[in-house]
Amino acid sequence: MKVATHHLRCTECATVIQNDAVSSNFRCPLCNGLYEVLYSWSEGPTSPESRLPNPSALRWLWQERRSSTMAVDQSGVWRFRDLLPIVDDLEKVVTLREGNTPLYDLPRCAKAAGIDWLLAKHQGMNPTGSFKDTGMTAALSVAAQRGFEWVACASTGNTSAAMAAYAARAGLRSIVFIPEGKIAWGKLSQSMDYGALTIQLKTDFDGCVKILGELVQKFPIYLLNSVNPYRLEGQKTPAFEMVEQMDWQVPEHIVVPGGNLANSAALAKGFSEMFQLGLIPRRPKISIIQAEGANPLYRWFIDSNREMKPVTADTRATAIRIGNPASWRKAAKAIDELGGWCEQASEQEIALAKAEIGAEGIGCEPASAVTLAGLKKLVALGKITPEERVVLILTGHTLKDSAYTIDYHRNELFTDAENAQLSQAERIQHAALRKAPIVLEADPSLVLRTLESHMNQPQPA
Amino acid sequence: MKVATHHLRCTECATVIQNDAVSSNFRCPLCNGLYEVLYSWSEGPTSPESRLPNPSALRWLWQERRSSTMAVDQSGVWRFRDLLPIVDDLEKVVTLREGNTPLYDLPRCAKAAGIDWLLAKHQGMNPTGSFKDTGMTAALSVAAQRGFEWVACASTGNTSAAMAAYAARAGLRSIVFIPEGKIAWGKLSQSMDYGALTIQLKTDFDGCVKILGELVQKFPIYLLNSVNPYRLEGQKTPAFEMVEQMDWQVPEHIVVPGGNLANSAALAKGFSEMFQLGLIPRRPKISIIQAEGANPLYRWFIDSNREMKPVTADTRATAIRIGNPASWRKAAKAIDELGGWCEQASEQEIALAKAEIGAEGIGCEPASAVTLAGLKKLVALGKITPEERVVLILTGHTLKDSAYTIDYHRNELFTDAENAQLSQAERIQHAALRKAPIVLEADPSLVLRTLESHMNQPQPA
Repeated sequence: MKVATHHLRCTECATVIQNDAVSSNFRCPLCNGLYEVLYSWSEGPTSPESRLPNPSALRWLWQERRSSTMAVDQSGVWRFRDLLPIVDDLEKVVTLREGNTPLYDLPRCAKAAGIDWLLAKHQGMNPTGSFKDTGMTAALSVAAQRGFEWVACASTGNTSAAMAAYAARAGLRSIVFIPEGKIAWGKLSQSMDYGALTIQLKTDFDGCVKILGELVQKFPIYLLNSVNPYRLEGQKTPAFEMVEQMDWQVPEHIVVPGGNLANSAALAKGFSEMFQLGLIPRRPKISIIQAEGANPLYRWFIDSNREMKPVTADTRATAIRIGNPASWRKAAKAIDELGGWCEQASEQEIALAKAEIGAEGIGCEPASAVTLAGLKKLVALGKITPEERVVLILTGHTLKDSAYTIDYHRNELFTDAENAQLSQAERIQHAALRKAPIVLEADPSLVLRTLESHMNQPQPA
Repeated sequence: MKVATHHLRCTECATVIQNDAVSSNFRCPLCNGLYEVLYSWSEGPTSPESRLPNPSALRWLWQERRSSTMAVDQSGVWRFRDLLPIVDDLEKVVTLREGNTPLYDLPRCAKAAGIDWLLAKHQGMNPTGSFKDTGMTAALSVAAQRGFEWVACASTGNTSAAMAAYAARAGLRSIVFIPEGKIAWGKLSQSMDYGALTIQLKTDFDGCVKILGELVQKFPIYLLNSVNPYRLEGQKTPAFEMVEQMDWQVPEHIVVPGGNLANSAALAKGFSEMFQLGLIPRRPKISIIQAEGANPLYRWFIDSNREMKPVTADTRATAIRIGNPASWRKAAKAIDELGGWCEQASEQEIALAKAEIGAEGIGCEPASAVTLAGLKKLVALGKITPEERVVLILTGHTLKDSAYTIDYHRNELFTDAENAQLSQAERIQHAALRKAPIVLEADPSLVLRTLESHMNQPQPA
């Protein structure tokens, strides 16, 4: 890898700065906007002096690296390092062999949604169980190269797990800031396991972000919240992987869960860079699905004035329970540029979709399942046609939220009043998927009779 | 792949049968022994008519497949299908892209154990979070090819999760038998998510196994307990992957957790087949580590009469809480043939080892951590020398048992009486690794002072 040659550009006022001139809170001093990483090819045809390999050479190189035993080649992020030259020294790359996630065929979910062909890119198969790993390998490598000893974020969930793992791998110390109050221990288990220090501050989540923003200006702590633009550089690589897995065919439509909205923006950046470089002939549409209880982008999308108004977030899909998404402008730009829609899904729709994905043998956390729930609506509305090739982005592993799965199958996820609102058809769908244990005497013939009665029941889908 | 040509041989009386002549309970009708899959090369030099590719050709083929986009090539099990020709039709292979698990360097754990060089092959990075996936892809592919519609196992943990996922993937129905009594819901969450039917029988675990054994003889249910020899064919492939990742170098020592003991046997089979075929010049030693509270193989190993006496199992490393291991003879044979030792680890030693592995940014379930705990003892006893290259087999992901991690860091895993038995050195080790949250006022300078005091504390190892 050559010397890292990239700039940072404010996504709001478009001011471009040297990459080492960025302030420690990653905010533009002129307009408080977020930065994005800019390369010579990000915006237009490659200039002659950039000497970037041509598309065929890149495709060949990326394929060759798959059979290498070097750690940076085994990583599904750093295998594409030609398009993320953000570290000078490959020795400084911090990797847990993230990426290389499977692209699964979902025939029964396709049928349920009313389309011919559906794939899922399962980012929950990353080392810590979520898509955050692809971003953290990038940002922690930058932190390690720049000589930081401490890194930090404000998060209770997937972000802190990924940060703690990569920090430990790099030999750095990590701090997780969370608001005081009842700790969600389950969510903290991974970051504690990976050795992070957890600090509970007597304030709310926004207060934690504020204190952290002050701290990084006084003390050499590298900030790893989603404002860090290098995380998006890692998170753009599943776009590369996906088209490579499809033998360089481009799907018509990508469907992404919408929480803090950095992921949609990152994937759009990945597709746009491939398009600029001539690696793909066109870009897919990107649609973003939010939970009804945490739907600020959806509201923006249907608002004729296109105003962003934060909401008080409430959904059991905790990974997207975000009312004031930091990266909404980047995501909005992605939808505007690539085409696509924003849709919302109810709690019941999310639960059904999660069970349908699980029944294909895959499983995901609730936030991932909004993609299937939203897809169904977009097909019903005619926004996606049956012959379009659609790829769902599943962001987290089913083990990330076992409690949700248990509550669903025990029929304890919703109140009776909530269930009473379901249609007859919806009730039948849930009943076919719900698998509460059956208690039987230890008698083979009784077990046999029970199985025979189950055998005659149709399988879901 | 050519037509499957393999036989089954009883591991006790050595009777060889045609693969389609096996009884539905996978037991030898003559002696009740377990079977193993036998190929022309399993036992000696390849016969001329077998037309198996030579070692260089195999190595080349396996490397080439890594850059293929076919599902069977992207699987870390089926990429080695030349050495597991158990299905006739590749279309029948059921895969979730298992295998291809990372081989991590553990420099700090190596130091803690007193050796120069330590690697971990992390089988917990498989799709359902445990090594069981490599076995289930093999056995479910056989079930699908043979036209079964139902599969079943008696299990509450990783086995049922893997079975349910692969069964769903194949479009088959799966049944999990568990004893009546309090359900460990967390352990069942995955198999419910993947659509398995759970039947609680009013009997104990052995009673479940017995009923299941009767059922499969009356009803076309394919048995997927560890007696199924095809599971071991999948579970041998991490041996292939490991030496390939090490550029065909062979480590001196493999350290494996010992529960039901099929996994140690499977890995030994993998190394032995490679050795027979000339793919590797020698085999590594295999050492098996058990929890003190579930140590029947350890007792057998130190017993001068070499008698196997089942024990009542009790350990928080639930994945190896097995007192009467089905595959103990196979594992005993592996130790005898390849060399190696059996060791046991206490609950406190397991907890410390798990935290040490976690602090390297990796994380695993408690059963996996017995490997590091046992390694320390084997080094202290001089059984493993500092310059030997050791590979730990980590069998499950840290997310498989979040509750254990939480209890450890909250210092609720052990009673005060248990903690009182620790030495001063052990207490210091635990204190350096334990990360209970700190509560602070939302005051940047206070946070800063707290961090500075932590900064001066040495990091573990």
